[in-house]
Amino acid sequence: MTTKNAKVALVGASGYVGEELVRLLLGHQHVDLVAATSRQFAGKTLAQIFPRFSHRERAKTLQFVDVDPKQLARDAEIIFLALPHGFAAEFAKPLVQTGARIVDLSADFRIKDPKIYKEFYGNDHPAPDLLAKAVYGLPEIYRAEISHANLVACPGCYPTSILLPLLPLIREKVVSLASILVTSLSGVTGAGHKVETDYLFAECNESIRPYGVPKHRHLSEIEQQLSEFAGEKVTIQFTPHLVPVNRGIITTIYVDLTKETDADSIASIYQKAYGEEPFVRLLGAERFPDTKNVSGTNFIDIAWRLDSRTGRAILMSAIDNIVKGASGQAIQCFNLMRGYPETEGLQNP
Amino acid sequence: MTTKNAKVALVGASGYVGEELVRLLLGHQHVDLVAATSRQFAGKTLAQIFPRFSHRERAKTLQFVDVDPKQLARDAEIIFLALPHGFAAEFAKPLVQTGARIVDLSADFRIKDPKIYKEFYGNDHPAPDLLAKAVYGLPEIYRAEISHANLVACPGCYPTSILLPLLPLIREKVVSLASILVTSLSGVTGAGHKVETDYLFAECNESIRPYGVPKHRHLSEIEQQLSEFAGEKVTIQFTPHLVPVNRGIITTIYVDLTKETDADSIASIYQKAYGEEPFVRLLGAERFPDTKNVSGTNFIDIAWRLDSRTGRAILMSAIDNIVKGASGQAIQCFNLMRGYPETEGLQNP
Amino acid sequence: MTTKNAKVALVGASGYVGEELVRLLLGHQHVDLVAATSRQFAGKTLAQIFPRFSHRERAKTLQFVDVDPKQLARDAEIIFLALPHGFAAEFAKPLVQTGARIVDLSADFRIKDPKIYKEFYGNDHPAPDLLAKAVYGLPEIYRAEISHANLVACPGCYPTSILLPLLPLIREKVVSLASILVTSLSGVTGAGHKVETDYLFAECNESIRPYGVPKHRHLSEIEQQLSEFAGEKVTIQFTPHLVPVNRGIITTIYVDLTKETDADSIASIYQKAYGEEPFVRLLGAERFPDTKNVSGTNFIDIAWRLDSRTGRAILMSAIDNIVKGASGQAIQCFNLMRGYPETEGLQNP
Amino acid sequence: MTTKNAKVALVGASGYVGEELVRLLLGHQHVDLVAATSRQFAGKTLAQIFPRFSHRERAKTLQFVDVDPKQLARDAEIIFLALPHGFAAEFAKPLVQTGARIVDLSADFRIKDPKIYKEFYGNDHPAPDLLAKAVYGLPEIYRAEISHANLVACPGCYPTSILLPLLPLIREKVVSLASILVTSLSGVTGAGHKVETDYLFAECNESIRPYGVPKHRHLSEIEQQLSEFAGEKVTIQFTPHLVPVNRGIITTIYVDLTKETDADSIASIYQKAYGEEPFVRLLGAERFPDTKNVSGTNFIDIAWRLDSRTGRAILMSAIDNIVKGASGQAIQCFNLMRGYPETEGLQNP
Repeated sequence: MTTKNAKVALVGASGYVGEELVRLLLGHQHVDLVAATSRQFAGKTLAQIFPRFSHRERAKTLQFVDVDPKQLARDAEIIFLALPHGFAAEFAKPLVQTGARIVDLSADFRIKDPKIYKEFYGNDHPAPDLLAKAVYGLPEIYRAEISHANLVACPGCYPTSILLPLLPLIREKVVSLASILVTSLSGVTGAGHKVETDYLFAECNESIRPYGVPKHRHLSEIEQQLSEFAGEKVTIQFTPHLVPVNRGIITTIYVDLTKETDADSIASIYQKAYGEEPFVRLLGAERFPDTKNVSGTNFIDIAWRLDSRTGRAILMSAIDNIVKGASGQAIQCFNLMRGYPETEGLQNP
Repeated sequence: MTTKNAKVALVGASGYVGEELVRLLLGHQHVDLVAATSRQFAGKTLAQIFPRFSHRERAKTLQFVDVDPKQLARDAEIIFLALPHGFAAEFAKPLVQTGARIVDLSADFRIKDPKIYKEFYGNDHPAPDLLAKAVYGLPEIYRAEISHANLVACPGCYPTSILLPLLPLIREKVVSLASILVTSLSGVTGAGHKVETDYLFAECNESIRPYGVPKHRHLSEIEQQLSEFAGEKVTIQFTPHLVPVNRGIITTIYVDLTKETDADSIASIYQKAYGEEPFVRLLGAERFPDTKNVSGTNFIDIAWRLDSRTGRAILMSAIDNIVKGASGQAIQCFNLMRGYPETEGLQNP
Repeated sequence: MTTKNAKVALVGASGYVGEELVRLLLGHQHVDLVAATSRQFAGKTLAQIFPRFSHRERAKTLQFVDVDPKQLARDAEIIFLALPHGFAAEFAKPLVQTGARIVDLSADFRIKDPKIYKEFYGNDHPAPDLLAKAVYGLPEIYRAEISHANLVACPGCYPTSILLPLLPLIREKVVSLASILVTSLSGVTGAGHKVETDYLFAECNESIRPYGVPKHRHLSEIEQQLSEFAGEKVTIQFTPHLVPVNRGIITTIYVDLTKETDADSIASIYQKAYGEEPFVRLLGAERFPDTKNVSGTNFIDIAWRLDSRTGRAILMSAIDNIVKGASGQAIQCFNLMRGYPETEGLQNP
Repeated sequence: MTTKNAKVALVGASGYVGEELVRLLLGHQHVDLVAATSRQFAGKTLAQIFPRFSHRERAKTLQFVDVDPKQLARDAEIIFLALPHGFAAEFAKPLVQTGARIVDLSADFRIKDPKIYKEFYGNDHPAPDLLAKAVYGLPEIYRAEISHANLVACPGCYPTSILLPLLPLIREKVVSLASILVTSLSGVTGAGHKVETDYLFAECNESIRPYGVPKHRHLSEIEQQLSEFAGEKVTIQFTPHLVPVNRGIITTIYVDLTKETDADSIASIYQKAYGEEPFVRLLGAERFPDTKNVSGTNFIDIAWRLDSRTGRAILMSAIDNIVKGASGQAIQCFNLMRGYPETEGLQNP
């Protein structure tokens, strides 16, 4: 494995995902953070914007600058894009041509079919020719492809929490594809850093609410991945809920089992799929996931139950939406791309 | 309607449901609270135990006493039982014989079949002969029966939030009975006042977790009611989750529709069922329920969506688990039993 | 006492204080709410903006309108102003001339001296000639004046929580005036409904922070009232803190005692001052205030301790910042102005 | 510096401080955790008790055992005691005789004078002869002493947050000793892991409350340290408050300045005292501390203001009560005792 450091740039850092990326990049021993861009924060140091990291030497010296793609391409080997969808693709176009490798945290390169992108995101895809080049950044599934990719599309937070429990069971064909129902509960950072009434403290505290029913945008990438694994079109039901925690997603999935499958065979399937994975913890059929056990970490905790009354399996997962669901997974991809140990910079706490 | 006051006794007040009952009884203009029993608090006034209500004259004078069923039966016309399951039935037995009318907030009289009680609660039913006399205290469904009942079994909090959205659709036969899946999210008072590690602040704050999968006790009364309405045995899937709010339940229900049913016909069914109900607010197919809009109140807010991609309907409800899900509904039943206006003592805020 | 209903208008309802006023006005049996103005919400019903009150008949029918002072003065006998400081005074000027009685919840009429207003609020007072006419709306202190006032300036939330514990001790001259130090802790609605980064859920949750040190604006009215009672200029120390609750203020006050004063004499002073007050609960030298005991109510809970080690007294109070600290106190003043029972519409829960 | 690993044992791990110590010890590259004792958890692995750390190899293999002092002394070079006060001293007695070095997180060895211990803790000190040997584990103040100590008494959480801002000003004699007033706000883990009603989620959420007034136990060690620095007996005022966050203390200190001191000279004093400290961040006279910037870290953030109106200085600090206020500081001491880099195992996040 190489231990040569990577020259890294970060584009867009005003959201919670961007802040967490800053944290992880500043703490990564193989990262030389050469630039951070933000129109909003230009001229200020990272330490000024993020008092939590203000003791880091690099945070004290590195100033946010306005975006200059050519300069970025000259200075950096790997560029993280933490921008809203739409903006990321516009931005990636010139960078890709320069040969820079890109880790994109937006939705822009997750969808293979630009028609589906338009259906779910409302506008024509800004760079459809790049879609075929992008690799879906779910290391447990696409590890080899990520290693060699020049453009990695990091999965959404809900998709990460849904796909990792589901894909092994679909691969083993023990699930009735028409039966998949998913309920997710997310903390408020999942809404990004939007300064909107809905996300004020007094609107979220002592509040629980469903939203985005019935057609949340993340369905597009979830169904694309499920369909690819199933070899046929899969349509699922998905309901997200907002709950008053800062971080964390609990996902509960209901599936009809297609054949005689018991708890032991489910356990075997997961053990085979994830037994060696550094960031998957299998809780089995006794314990329950809890967001407090994964918050601040890159782990996904997966548990399951079989219900003999209904013949269904209930799959449950917990992640930190801005670590395994965004920034941490992006670092995991980065480690693969650079040949660093996959857990580098992600061992804590 | 009568306006003669009722002599009321409360048995067991150490949980959050009991505390809320005290609040509602102290504020009810037709209630003369003649006794409150609690072994734990005997000798102390209500004001000492519940500083929130310490300004109420009756709270300053009324002391908790140890339980004496005979004395209670002599002094009170209506007795609220806020006891753990098992205890309530033991307690009710002698009281029923004296002719006192009982509003029980435990699970003990909700189940008609003592075998099912044993299956879900683990012990033989302490008073199986009383089960046939009990009326299920869901006023929107059993208003007339409650009015004349001597023994009302108030529904559980989850069942209230699940049955009210489901029953009208089942009555109108637009739902595939085998397809019913329910996810609920509950605040921490739903666990009662248990002084256990799991419910400490630092264990619940910044925590989201499923529990009670796959066979939560409340399934027994939910399936009993659904089966009765459907005319056949109904088995459902149900997953509760604990989220860090004090009060509130959000329930999200997925059902396959059995025939051509559109949003308008769903709206008509609900309008017909609940259009005149004082405590049901129909949010329709545009708005979402939010626990903060019902907390502290006796309302249930109900919303729905049709998903043309999957053919399913998604039903969503919000209640305050200790008001409409317990104490408030108990008062609503009490008002019916006594012939008071149904909203008496429940108009706030 | 009169029971003739009052025709009431509400100007400005976009903040949490305005929302709470709507709640209280809709529930007040002697209020005919004839108008509610809001530029932002014009054309929408109260029910649309405040789903929590959407069951109220008046909320379904009354639409927010744009402000028309002349029309307001024609339609309403009493007008509540829930506007930002500066705007309220501009608005009040023409209304006062029409003879309408005004209950202002802003800071605009709390300060007698326009120079002090400018010192603390930064701009010249928009209507200095009205300052002398305004009565400070602290009913426990200025009950008689409020009854006859045409312009009532409701106190700020911090001042309410500070003045009520302090004023009786100052009146009795048992406190060293130079020694007064105050620490307050406030919930997030105290910041109003500002859609700013600082008040997003993820910025407030798991956060505690002092702010406004050393010269918070509320010092102006606190010191004015203290000085008036003391008969000499009083300067105090005051530090507010933001803590992650929706509602509630805890104030802790330190004072040197000027003469031999024991816990009993403190108790006597408070008993004499507030023993008959409907909204003051004296907790004495044993119990502690807790915001959860007052939230949603118009109570102030007051406790005290004497520290024999230091010779100081520690005074502690709890209020709900948007009820006793704003809207509830405004209703209390309104009741006095109209001759209704002082607790009307404020008895809950 | 040595890099030889230390054989470490942990005694008592059932509280939040113990859990955090487990986290830090498992992540420390120079720690070989050879034993963890707990009567309550004996026979279970660390991974079973702390699912958050269940991926750590050592957590999967190491089982809690019942306490056997002799065995501990044989196996471990350094022993951390995370026990309730009283128990820790009893336990330390035989261990000290064996030559083991001890880091005690209880209050038992913080007080030099057994009479003061008895005054504040209620019982005779169990090992008064050891008091003289103990070093107060505040590295910024007693670095050299800690390095050579065999018995380190880690400071309490409040004392850490109070002493670090105060001591430099007292050393420079710019503070009137009689004037010191302290208000602190603490998260709920500060109460330890007590399974008591007061610390249930529904009792703490939406609650703010003072407690422990006027004579909190931590006063004993605070005043002892202040007096030692001042060269005379110092008595202070201190009020702690409980607020609904998991972690974090905000401390606000008021002091009269004894001579012409301006913001610059305060800044110089702090710069001189802490400019090179790895875990002290000086926020100066512009920024405010916020617990969310220190939670999970070993930092103390210190800010200050001068109030020209009152002549007082206001000092403000933020720490994580179970890291810098307990476990992290213990590790910092351990690093000093063993000659490891002082920040080892504490660099995150």
